[in-house]
Amino acid sequence: MSKLEKRTITKQSEDFSQWYLDIIREAELAEVAEVRGCGIVRPYGLKIWELIKAELNKRIEDDGVENVYFPSLVPIENLEMEKDHVEGFSPELAVVTHAGGEELTNKLAIRPTSEAAMYKTYAKWIQSYNDLPLRLNQWANIVRWEKRPRPFLRWSEFLWQEGHTVYATEAEAKDEVQKILGIYSDIYKFMSIPAYCGKKSESEKFAGAVETYTVEVMSRDGKAIQGGTSHYLGTNFAEVFDVSYLGADGEKHFGHQNSWGLSWRSVGALIMAHGDDNGLRLPPNVAPIQIVIVPIFKDDAGKTEVLNYAQKLKESLKEYRVKIDDKPNQTPGFKFHYWELKGVPIRLEIGLQEVSGDKVTLFRRDNNTKEIVLTSDLKKRIKELVVEIADNLYQEAAEFSASHIKRIESWDEIDDSQVWFEASWSEDAESEKKLKERFLMVSRELPLGNENKKPNNKKCFITGKEAKHDWLFAKSY
Amino acid sequence: MSKLEKRTITKQSEDFSQWYLDIIREAELAEVAEVRGCGIVRPYGLKIWELIKAELNKRIEDDGVENVYFPSLVPIENLEMEKDHVEGFSPELAVVTHAGGEELTNKLAIRPTSEAAMYKTYAKWIQSYNDLPLRLNQWANIVRWEKRPRPFLRWSEFLWQEGHTVYATEAEAKDEVQKILGIYSDIYKFMSIPAYCGKKSESEKFAGAVETYTVEVMSRDGKAIQGGTSHYLGTNFAEVFDVSYLGADGEKHFGHQNSWGLSWRSVGALIMAHGDDNGLRLPPNVAPIQIVIVPIFKDDAGKTEVLNYAQKLKESLKEYRVKIDDKPNQTPGFKFHYWELKGVPIRLEIGLQEVSGDKVTLFRRDNNTKEIVLTSDLKKRIKELVVEIADNLYQEAAEFSASHIKRIESWDEIDDSQVWFEASWSEDAESEKKLKERFLMVSRELPLGNENKKPNNKKCFITGKEAKHDWLFAKSY
Repeated sequence: MSKLEKRTITKQSEDFSQWYLDIIREAELAEVAEVRGCGIVRPYGLKIWELIKAELNKRIEDDGVENVYFPSLVPIENLEMEKDHVEGFSPELAVVTHAGGEELTNKLAIRPTSEAAMYKTYAKWIQSYNDLPLRLNQWANIVRWEKRPRPFLRWSEFLWQEGHTVYATEAEAKDEVQKILGIYSDIYKFMSIPAYCGKKSESEKFAGAVETYTVEVMSRDGKAIQGGTSHYLGTNFAEVFDVSYLGADGEKHFGHQNSWGLSWRSVGALIMAHGDDNGLRLPPNVAPIQIVIVPIFKDDAGKTEVLNYAQKLKESLKEYRVKIDDKPNQTPGFKFHYWELKGVPIRLEIGLQEVSGDKVTLFRRDNNTKEIVLTSDLKKRIKELVVEIADNLYQEAAEFSASHIKRIESWDEIDDSQVWFEASWSEDAESEKKLKERFLMVSRELPLGNENKKPNNKKCFITGKEAKHDWLFAKSY
Repeated sequence: MSKLEKRTITKQSEDFSQWYLDIIREAELAEVAEVRGCGIVRPYGLKIWELIKAELNKRIEDDGVENVYFPSLVPIENLEMEKDHVEGFSPELAVVTHAGGEELTNKLAIRPTSEAAMYKTYAKWIQSYNDLPLRLNQWANIVRWEKRPRPFLRWSEFLWQEGHTVYATEAEAKDEVQKILGIYSDIYKFMSIPAYCGKKSESEKFAGAVETYTVEVMSRDGKAIQGGTSHYLGTNFAEVFDVSYLGADGEKHFGHQNSWGLSWRSVGALIMAHGDDNGLRLPPNVAPIQIVIVPIFKDDAGKTEVLNYAQKLKESLKEYRVKIDDKPNQTPGFKFHYWELKGVPIRLEIGLQEVSGDKVTLFRRDNNTKEIVLTSDLKKRIKELVVEIADNLYQEAAEFSASHIKRIESWDEIDDSQVWFEASWSEDAESEKKLKERFLMVSRELPLGNENKKPNNKKCFITGKEAKHDWLFAKSY
């Protein structure tokens, strides 16, 4: 792990994909595992996920959802029960054929998602309308064998939460789909990332769902990242797994089901939404280290004073995640570079000058500016700054996103440089295929606000037929 | 889930194993999954684990350990590298032979523990003595195919934490082994359970370890439950995976490694250490619901007053996990029974009499007694009670455990009713085998305090040869 040469990363403008891989490696977020397509998430990367997870878990528990844990292994025959579901997931399954020294009669898959793992049990738990709604969530590892892995965004194994709920009525279930979408959007706001909420097209929805809603966020190369999805499953799975209840009317009814998930892709989105040529830029909410203190002294001159002062500062900032970097044999410049790369929001530089002046030199990573702060004002200033930095990163990302969505009226306006655009669409599957084949992009979503609005253009930008709504289209990760 | 008949459980004295299964089912902790040997942990059971996990995570993070996540799939050839390790684990492996629609050239096992998954990467991370110590921990699911599953204690899949650390020297590594053992012991104290700390015999140690230390706790049928283990691995794995470092002396040295784990077996131990014929008894620290408020009214007489009063009480007790049980169509008696079964430490009963007298009837589950408390005194009384209840449960368990360990001097004193005893032992593997074959018990541990002490009896209770130390022996789960 020791590395004394300066860590360098490719410029975003040169090669964004390489920039992303470089930052993952040099900021010590993760690395490639021996097992194909899998990653090892290192402490600095995992802590970001744990901070996201804690906030999301609080939000869904406050909303009345309870956590549960089902086995990671699913009988293949359960997965085969819902036709669309098995079609969607069977190419990605990892299959256990032997266990305990014997060949298994019934093969097991490692869960690629847990509908098929849970709903037979749901059928036992739910008897009458009194048992509804049933609202459970699971934090779990998932395996989907990836042909083209990318750190955090697309690994063969990933960590996520998956909510699985059952309601008596369609209306209640659909209300929850939107509520969860709102929570996901808030979680991105918590990361200072604006989220575009909307509905997926028929071809892009979850395998087995009636409707899929999504939060999409923009990377700094203009591409879209699917940040979390909330599905209304209707009675598709309920009919197959017999998730039914005896109604107040004395009749049997099928439950209306939802499932919704957000994974550590969100860490990838965070990196891509805020990072710059110097490395990560983390909003304080999800920064493993919110403040780094770098004591500066030449040889041993002033060492004790400076270190004591640093320690005192750290103790006065107990409500934050603070680290003193007193590693020997590294220059201040080397340390500055390192912590900027790791995206620490606030750096306090302390030399003898600062000690004698009862002040600190404060560097903020969001806009790379320095200011001098009197120690007596420090707590107040930092309290302001954690909000300012979060707001500033949000604003910057919001302006970037808004300015990188073009309006397109016709097929001829699209060229290979196009990354994310809005257009009026006929919602015709064949036309989406054409776009995918020619420009490697598909619809990302029908934005929430456009669902009940007429399109800006009456003619579909691809087919020329009648357009139904204004949609977002983008290249994506 | 709705169930209006009264839930009944077998008496401990009649059939302890059945009592355990009944309580798991009726207190809605977990149930048997479709996949053989696996369990589904329901919200009430999982919350207990989450409370244990949060405390343990805090303890190890405070000690400087960082969390990491490695893939759940391990190349079989890695598992085969350490001879004792593969012998210990290969009979229990679940093997993935196909993934992404293709047969794998290199078969993968789902991690039965992660030494073989992590240490090749450790070898890359560690170059010089500056990189040491390396102290990482992982919260993960584990698969070990069980022939005789038992809820929480022995499922084919379970959740745990596994710490994996590397030190430059044997002394430092061994210090940590003891420190972690102390943390595990504290975690049981947090659950009001006395833990017996000690060293495992050669035949009972972890496959691949030099030394295994354990915390053992006593079930209320007198049997032992292994509650967590802390292993000194020496350089066994380091030599195989080349976990080595360049020392200050310029020479290459192998790292001294530890691994240590505590799983949701601890939930099983909690049930077995405190439960009684009426159900669970939970110490407040790990109770998903610490206080249940049962409003009592006949028909609609007083309903509003009583419910408002209950709500006001709940709001005044915000620092606790409080639930109001206002389910209709259930008698107070039914509810009392239900929450006693679920082990809720404190119950507040509120009827019109309580409302008009500005008081509550308070029931504590640890000793099943009632008291009347004035509302003005309630916060103070509950603050005392959470400590009192925890202490009382601990005392009771400590006295029970101490009084159920017999001292045995010779083989002839053992009979089939013997469950847990202390004896002076020659530490001879053959003699342990004999004990196992005849009485289905093995050594549990050499208690910490006995390591540097002469045995009480010079003669081994089995062989009559020279005894080395006083050991604990027990039947176990």
